[in-house]
Amino acid sequence: MAGFEGKMLEVNLSSGEVKKSVIDKGVLRRFIGGSGLGAKLMFDRIDPKIDGLSPQNELFILCGPISGTSLPGGARFAICAKSPLTNMFAESSCGGDFASELRSAGWDGIIVQGTSKKPVYLYIEDQKAEIKDASDLWGKNNHEVTQMLKERHGGRDARVLTIGQAGETQVRYAGIANGRSFAARCGMGAVMGSKKLKAIVVKGSGKTPLADPERFAEKRKVLIQKVKDNVATLVLGMLGTNAAVDVSAVTGDLPGKNWASGDNTAIAAKTGGPVLSGQQFLTGTESCFGCTVGCKRVNKITEGPFAGWAGPGPEYEGVVSLGSNLVIDDMAAIIKMNDMCNDFGLDVISAGSTIGMAMECMERGLLTTKDTGGIDLRWGNADAVVKIIPMIARREGFGATLAEGTKRAAQKIGKGASEYAIEVKGLEVPMHDPRAHHGLGLSYATSARGACHTNDPTYSIGTGIFDWPDLGLTPLLAAGVKESKVWGPVIKNSQDLGQIINAGVFCYMLGLVMNADDLTQLLASSSGFDYTFSELVECGERIWHMKRGVSNLMGITAADDTLPKRLLTPTTEGAAAGSKIDLELMLKEYYPARGLNPDGRPSKETLNRLGLSDLAAKLY
Amino acid sequence: MAGFEGKMLEVNLSSGEVKKSVIDKGVLRRFIGGSGLGAKLMFDRIDPKIDGLSPQNELFILCGPISGTSLPGGARFAICAKSPLTNMFAESSCGGDFASELRSAGWDGIIVQGTSKKPVYLYIEDQKAEIKDASDLWGKNNHEVTQMLKERHGGRDARVLTIGQAGETQVRYAGIANGRSFAARCGMGAVMGSKKLKAIVVKGSGKTPLADPERFAEKRKVLIQKVKDNVATLVLGMLGTNAAVDVSAVTGDLPGKNWASGDNTAIAAKTGGPVLSGQQFLTGTESCFGCTVGCKRVNKITEGPFAGWAGPGPEYEGVVSLGSNLVIDDMAAIIKMNDMCNDFGLDVISAGSTIGMAMECMERGLLTTKDTGGIDLRWGNADAVVKIIPMIARREGFGATLAEGTKRAAQKIGKGASEYAIEVKGLEVPMHDPRAHHGLGLSYATSARGACHTNDPTYSIGTGIFDWPDLGLTPLLAAGVKESKVWGPVIKNSQDLGQIINAGVFCYMLGLVMNADDLTQLLASSSGFDYTFSELVECGERIWHMKRGVSNLMGITAADDTLPKRLLTPTTEGAAAGSKIDLELMLKEYYPARGLNPDGRPSKETLNRLGLSDLAAKLY
Repeated sequence: MAGFEGKMLEVNLSSGEVKKSVIDKGVLRRFIGGSGLGAKLMFDRIDPKIDGLSPQNELFILCGPISGTSLPGGARFAICAKSPLTNMFAESSCGGDFASELRSAGWDGIIVQGTSKKPVYLYIEDQKAEIKDASDLWGKNNHEVTQMLKERHGGRDARVLTIGQAGETQVRYAGIANGRSFAARCGMGAVMGSKKLKAIVVKGSGKTPLADPERFAEKRKVLIQKVKDNVATLVLGMLGTNAAVDVSAVTGDLPGKNWASGDNTAIAAKTGGPVLSGQQFLTGTESCFGCTVGCKRVNKITEGPFAGWAGPGPEYEGVVSLGSNLVIDDMAAIIKMNDMCNDFGLDVISAGSTIGMAMECMERGLLTTKDTGGIDLRWGNADAVVKIIPMIARREGFGATLAEGTKRAAQKIGKGASEYAIEVKGLEVPMHDPRAHHGLGLSYATSARGACHTNDPTYSIGTGIFDWPDLGLTPLLAAGVKESKVWGPVIKNSQDLGQIINAGVFCYMLGLVMNADDLTQLLASSSGFDYTFSELVECGERIWHMKRGVSNLMGITAADDTLPKRLLTPTTEGAAAGSKIDLELMLKEYYPARGLNPDGRPSKETLNRLGLSDLAAKLY
Repeated sequence: MAGFEGKMLEVNLSSGEVKKSVIDKGVLRRFIGGSGLGAKLMFDRIDPKIDGLSPQNELFILCGPISGTSLPGGARFAICAKSPLTNMFAESSCGGDFASELRSAGWDGIIVQGTSKKPVYLYIEDQKAEIKDASDLWGKNNHEVTQMLKERHGGRDARVLTIGQAGETQVRYAGIANGRSFAARCGMGAVMGSKKLKAIVVKGSGKTPLADPERFAEKRKVLIQKVKDNVATLVLGMLGTNAAVDVSAVTGDLPGKNWASGDNTAIAAKTGGPVLSGQQFLTGTESCFGCTVGCKRVNKITEGPFAGWAGPGPEYEGVVSLGSNLVIDDMAAIIKMNDMCNDFGLDVISAGSTIGMAMECMERGLLTTKDTGGIDLRWGNADAVVKIIPMIARREGFGATLAEGTKRAAQKIGKGASEYAIEVKGLEVPMHDPRAHHGLGLSYATSARGACHTNDPTYSIGTGIFDWPDLGLTPLLAAGVKESKVWGPVIKNSQDLGQIINAGVFCYMLGLVMNADDLTQLLASSSGFDYTFSELVECGERIWHMKRGVSNLMGITAADDTLPKRLLTPTTEGAAAGSKIDLELMLKEYYPARGLNPDGRPSKETLNRLGLSDLAAKLY
């Protein structure tokens, strides 16, 4: 069959060897693709004890059956490795145009092993793959390298993955760029940098294979129509993901001042959807490959210190992590800082969060300008952030401390600074406040990669995203998102669904219109496996436990399933004022539903039921 | 049967007579209620040649089967009369809490005839109705009168309709207040003022009758759940109707500078959803009776010239008509001006539109401060608007000119000012630009009351509102809202649906979640008639033609089905730049579909098919 066949390009940068391998069909069916497959490959290939930045780590760039098809929201692919930030299983998802080209070249994924002695990039043209010298690219940032490689290899047709200076210096939260899209989280760019791999260029002359093109086309048509008709996807196209700022602010979901401020509506009013997408800043919109939504912003700045800048605009997460989180309400500065992070190759969530921690330390006297080399990291000081971003990316001065991520940086600062490091398992918390939605708190505490709101659709439950009665994810707003008691048993199902999405690899935004049948038909007709929805849900469950098991082997226990103290303390103002998360209660109900032992390992019973006896053998 | 029985309270203010009458069951079934019934009553009872402000005009305050039930969006009722603004059939819809109380008192409507010699108000307590002296209320505005009457008649339980000074002086676009809700359009407050009827107070000890309470309760439950689950109704609750500013601005739908400016995103960014609903201005939200959405804003102003003000906040229409339409981006001033209009009893759309016309005349030198008594009506001058609003309401100085509405005021100003009067059939255009949505242009040109976006759901087609395949209202975004060719045949169906909604009387916002079956079951179980959807659609068609026929008898012809020149001319900037409405094409296709003769009268064939031979006899 054509379809998703698991054709992997294996590149060993230590030996210079390049070869082809094919994933076993049974593995493909059981782990779907994307980060599902990534978990399985990590389990099979990686010694859990290795350092994330060592040559023994491997970088898994993985498509799923949907990746690179011309489905709206179907451009995505996953990048997995042991994370240098969290020291456990990591996955990062990226949109853009790389997956479609990679699959057009006949590949479903790339595995990068070893470490090169000198900077290199990988050039792929259909079945040909070459390791090339990257001396002239090293030291440059994402925008420039992308431009250079596109010019060198045939313009628009060449699709490019790159790292910026932050990846080179192995900032623990460095990301990987695919043009204007980013696999930002968990430091995958640092892993790439540790291998001295500056970029990957791919050109394909074929097309993305589909097992049943007609059946797929039919469902695709349905989805395109739904996207056109749905008010939420329409608004997404009109205002971008930043539309969420407007509603997050009034529900108490929008964090501010390193999560200490509960009411951030004043900053939201200056940085929300209509501001970013108004004439002052917007010049156009863009989509990932094949998508009809157009949620990406293209911005310009015409006034103030950044006048003359034009380029890709921020997403919701960037606007908030660099905006209200730092008490910055200057939209132009936020646009500029966000682009700097993208260009240098820093995850905007982790960068904003780490800087926010430092600002709080400065306010509280735990840091002074002596420590920071004269940079005045006070709340709202965008100039200081503009100065510190390159220093982080280059690990210069105080930037080297912040390059370690909020958890390690706070430990270095000491004096109790860790209280202001808002992270779970070392991953900085995304910009949605669980005090406004307790289920999200449980999700953060137990997600496969640390604090994450895209590892399952919990954040969206109640707003119609992936709201599928057959999974028991019925809307729970009635029961109260600001109550803990209803969430325990629900999150398990939400996570199983999330694993399918990230294995597919689907865009979460498509959940606004997609239902269980759409998902099943699309995965079956693209992969070639005659999936039913219930089989997929079982795959989701299997994938979750494989990710968890890999992380258990790397040292994760029940004690790590927690939230920072600040998020367990109610705010005193804003729409979620007084709302206190009862994480203990939620975990108590979640653990048995999830099939976890009290020590945080998947139970033997669960693993055996899911056909993961190999994992059980290693865990027990 | 209990249900909607058409129990009318008839009050003759000339004679002082108060009596009960009951509408014929056949009429009820065929015209449903609300403005459908209003059209039939106007046809039966009103000489088309009378002046709207004469004692011979009658004020019809009409519930529908849904009015005053505890359904979300079910609080609304209709007020109909010959309009002093448009000189034809008029209807105005109002939310609030009046309908539930009126029906609890055992009444489905009130008909006010004649004119009192001195100011009076009507007091209704269950089946008792009294005409009372209103000398002490006369001269006062809505908020104060409402307060006084509630205190006098038992506090919260007394529900009140009032007019402000604008109604007393018969400003042609004076509205009627029910607390913080308004029957604003078409000058119904002027009709009430012409009768010297200052207020109506009602207290009922019963409850709103339902023909089949169990069946109704079942559907109500479904709708409440849908409202809770739907992302659009959720956002409506979070940001109010002002959320529409954010998206309108980026589609070119948001008017600015008296409809001359195509790109109003800069003002939208300062007056949009997150600004109005942020901590700076929001203190709470409110709902109409029985509703679970909570789209009403409660605002405060803490800084600037209006600091200390607190009260009901504006809707989308007020924010735009008094905001970008006048090039005013000061949210505090807009909130204040909007509340002044509501308190004095001016329709915010007509007020903003008329003032906008005057501002343009001033800019162009057609008016000077000599004409305006020194008031500098230049673009963006909120101070001038704050000064002119009371003068309009009191018909003082230049205010007396603007009290006539944009069409008549422009005629008075002369020198070609009519080119800047943006109205259809004398009714000022609501704040959605048809150049961004051509179907809306045809809807404005042919709606039953002049330019109106709530006489049918055309504005919403493509965004899921009342998107019912059985009516052929399939989403047309694919075909392009900025193209004229697809709209002609669609608008007829949209209008038929709109007539059912306004006869029901439903809130348009419920269309975000309601489907054909919901609508049918709710109307059948509340009214007691075993409606099918197709019978309801035929009712809608009948109602449209009855409204049209009444207006034909009052002088409306095909020549009135048009748009102001400005709206037929493309803008040069913004998201709808260059988009030119082909109204001629749309009308050519619409007329036969609508069953209109080329002269603008309903064809005899159509009227006979709909059982309107009595109307045919008068028209031909």
